Amino acid sequence: MVRIDGERLLANLATLRTFGATGHGVVRPTYSDIDMQARRWLAEQMTKAGLDPVIDGVGNVYGRSTKPGPTVVLGSHSDTQPEGGWLDGAMGVMHAIEVAHTLHEDPSTTSLSVEAVSWADEEGTYAGFIGSRSFVDQISAADYQLTGPSGETVEQALTRLDLTNVARVRFEPHRHVAYLESHIEQGPHLEEVGLQIGAVTTIVGIRTMRIVFEGQQNHAGTTPMHRRRDAATALFRWANDLHDTMPTAASDTSVWTIGEVSVEPGAQSIVPGRAAAVLQFRDGDDAVLDEMTTLVRGLVDTYDDPAGVRVSAEGPIGSVAAAPMDADVVRHVCAAAEEVAPDAWTAMPSMAGHDAQILAPHLPCGMVFIPSIGGVSHDFAEDSRADDIVLGAQVLANATIRLSATR
Amino acid sequence: MVRIDGERLLANLATLRTFGATGHGVVRPTYSDIDMQARRWLAEQMTKAGLDPVIDGVGNVYGRSTKPGPTVVLGSHSDTQPEGGWLDGAMGVMHAIEVAHTLHEDPSTTSLSVEAVSWADEEGTYAGFIGSRSFVDQISAADYQLTGPSGETVEQALTRLDLTNVARVRFEPHRHVAYLESHIEQGPHLEEVGLQIGAVTTIVGIRTMRIVFEGQQNHAGTTPMHRRRDAATALFRWANDLHDTMPTAASDTSVWTIGEVSVEPGAQSIVPGRAAAVLQFRDGDDAVLDEMTTLVRGLVDTYDDPAGVRVSAEGPIGSVAAAPMDADVVRHVCAAAEEVAPDAWTAMPSMAGHDAQILAPHLPCGMVFIPSIGGVSHDFAEDSRADDIVLGAQVLANATIRLSATR
Repeated sequence: MVRIDGERLLANLATLRTFGATGHGVVRPTYSDIDMQARRWLAEQMTKAGLDPVIDGVGNVYGRSTKPGPTVVLGSHSDTQPEGGWLDGAMGVMHAIEVAHTLHEDPSTTSLSVEAVSWADEEGTYAGFIGSRSFVDQISAADYQLTGPSGETVEQALTRLDLTNVARVRFEPHRHVAYLESHIEQGPHLEEVGLQIGAVTTIVGIRTMRIVFEGQQNHAGTTPMHRRRDAATALFRWANDLHDTMPTAASDTSVWTIGEVSVEPGAQSIVPGRAAAVLQFRDGDDAVLDEMTTLVRGLVDTYDDPAGVRVSAEGPIGSVAAAPMDADVVRHVCAAAEEVAPDAWTAMPSMAGHDAQILAPHLPCGMVFIPSIGGVSHDFAEDSRADDIVLGAQVLANATIRLSATR
Repeated sequence: MVRIDGERLLANLATLRTFGATGHGVVRPTYSDIDMQARRWLAEQMTKAGLDPVIDGVGNVYGRSTKPGPTVVLGSHSDTQPEGGWLDGAMGVMHAIEVAHTLHEDPSTTSLSVEAVSWADEEGTYAGFIGSRSFVDQISAADYQLTGPSGETVEQALTRLDLTNVARVRFEPHRHVAYLESHIEQGPHLEEVGLQIGAVTTIVGIRTMRIVFEGQQNHAGTTPMHRRRDAATALFRWANDLHDTMPTAASDTSVWTIGEVSVEPGAQSIVPGRAAAVLQFRDGDDAVLDEMTTLVRGLVDTYDDPAGVRVSAEGPIGSVAAAPMDADVVRHVCAAAEEVAPDAWTAMPSMAGHDAQILAPHLPCGMVFIPSIGGVSHDFAEDSRADDIVLGAQVLANATIRLSATR
């Protein structure tokens, strides 16, 4: 068995962490100086791994293979949330480079063609998934006008970074045969069931709806209770009912969240005339998402009161289709997991979004998960066990070799 | 019967409206240039009414009596909300000047001593009730450091207006025998019951509490529903329960409002870790407010879950005691109302705050209400019928004469 170099992997991860290190976490937002410094350092590691790196026209660090034949693409992202964990996408990027390095060094695999990539802006500091969307040509002129910190557009950022005249690395259907991404789970499931590896079967679809409540703004002293058309009170009742009834449409793994609430004008002496809630829900199956959408719309109609508070739904204003992983690739990931961690792995959905969901409609994709301690992510406290980090890289290596052998 | 001059009153009100006129409404925030221009114009009208006006050290326009003997103080305020109605306090100020003018002109009442005032900052652009609090010496050094628009302190505003070396007009216990204020109702009650005059019996007390929900911020995709400690969901359930149970502690005229809500961090992909609601409740009886406070605290305790979302109550963070009007003054107002508008008046509480509540602990106070069309106030659309405006002034005049006769 080809063995990845766990010490080298952990040392490289520790170095990558220093770019933007903030306490236990990392602050490395897309297109920031520290993000670009990290990308240049990643390019150097790709060279050491036998790859031919380029920072492309949207900021992807892409280590091209110097070898002929079908290529498996390995990768993830190295940008972070505003207050990010040190592993998140960074682990998958270092896994990709480590696997390329190991396969390049080992005589039995040195002829295999693999490529490693750190996609740009997975976290959406600017537009979200810019790098992987560019790769499969799912990026539009409008995306370049989306804004990041202090109102800078994507176009302005790329101009600042002198990337506007640099070519974008693009998907080559006849050469790129599969994409594999390893990632921390970002949830508590693997830890709860006591397993070390997850073979991802599907990445959840996400729908976002904005529920708007329009009542009558009024004086909070002189307006008697029976005359009020209080938008906030209507929102509270609607949200309660939603939480109570959503399980009838959802699956066991569905999640739903009201993460944004506004109440206007937002003054203690004024009965709110307007309120809004942003509801997001996720499931690995688009049919379940359809049922949840129907339930939400029904509840909006039930609460809409022409004589009281009007309730309406905008959207889905954001919608990401569920992205099933390729069945063949999943089988190889499962087989690799069983080789490396017998009886210590499971097939599971990914409840978070990943670059793999952008690529999945275009080429066969698979993902490898390792446990997140306490299920914590998108937080400085995010962490995973070193043994699991090394184990995940080994599963990625074995899955890559298996995939290469069949293509 | 001494008759007020309705045409002069309406003409003066129309002129006062031009200071800050914005569409149907008025924008005349405390200590703004337009507020001070209006105050200088009001001083001129006081002179015409036979009064000796001064703009005092906190911006009150105070028309002193030139006559000896016990004095009834008449007044209200001429500052407005950020988007104010044209009548609000302005009507009461013009009523006060018109009554002083009428009584001064009429041989039968020319010897009566009355004073007219427009108090400063009733609406709280800076600190709230600055003028009436200054009059009864309920203003502190800390009040002068409270800030208004663009962070200017009261002290800085008074310096800008060159008022820091001007004396403050102060309550004189042996001369000021009563305070009468007329005002639009700002609510729908008089209109609903088809009456023209309200004799105010009490001004509601107001209590404000901030309810804080502390859960666990987490990823909205990877955190299963059963693991969540969602602060927003807890807030929705608590608020619903509050609205359902509050009637058991409240009186028929109590009102309660959740006018401010915050959900943090306020992102669609993050389970809220923290949420807060500002609850304000009002009643004319402090004992009822005590019962409502007890109910709120009990509900906080019921929902506080050490293993889930912690719930705590801050405050009452703002508390205004209920201010009963003086029984003797109320009787005179009722008698005046019956003289002027037989069977078309009622005794009622004021659900809004007024300068009279600041003065009530110090001297006998009463108030006269007229109907608000549609109950609308603190809004550009605020309005009242001209007949009611004139009628209210006449009630104020008669009540003033009656009060003067008994002192």
